Amino acid sequence: MKAKVYITPKQGILDPQGVAIERSLPALGFEGVANVRVGKYIELELPAGDGAADEVDKMCHKLLANPIIEDFRFELETE
Amino acid sequence: MKAKVYITPKQGILDPQGVAIERSLPALGFEGVANVRVGKYIELELPAGDGAADEVDKMCHKLLANPIIEDFRFELETE
Repeated sequence: MKAKVYITPKQGILDPQGVAIERSLPALGFEGVANVRVGKYIELELPAGDGAADEVDKMCHKLLANPIIEDFRFELETE
Repeated sequence: MKAKVYITPKQGILDPQGVAIERSLPALGFEGVANVRVGKYIELELPAGDGAADEVDKMCHKLLANPIIEDFRFELETE
């Protein structure tokens, strides 16, 4: 089965990539864009089973995300 | 309105971050995980309007993604 993991910087945590994008957009002709936050999007395949959601949650805590400064959520898709 | 942009490395493009994660998972006790692909997830707010989708598409081409090596898709949410 496929897991899609979305990782975002927590509210209040400085996001330098987001700030850089926000500052660059007006020079490219895009006005009024605000609150740009840059996170990660991870796709992976894992063995299907009842424990899959629990497994992905653990992967996020241990390796994929940094729970101190990042929030994460994920979706599982049966193929 | 809010835009959520998902950027992934194109099929066939080497994804070193994904490879690194895939190799690290077994050591942490996660077996059988395959096809890990690491991309970016960007949230931003922009002025609502008919042209919003077109605007985000242009932002992706010009700044957010590298269309040569990355695929992107996005969703718009009215708040």
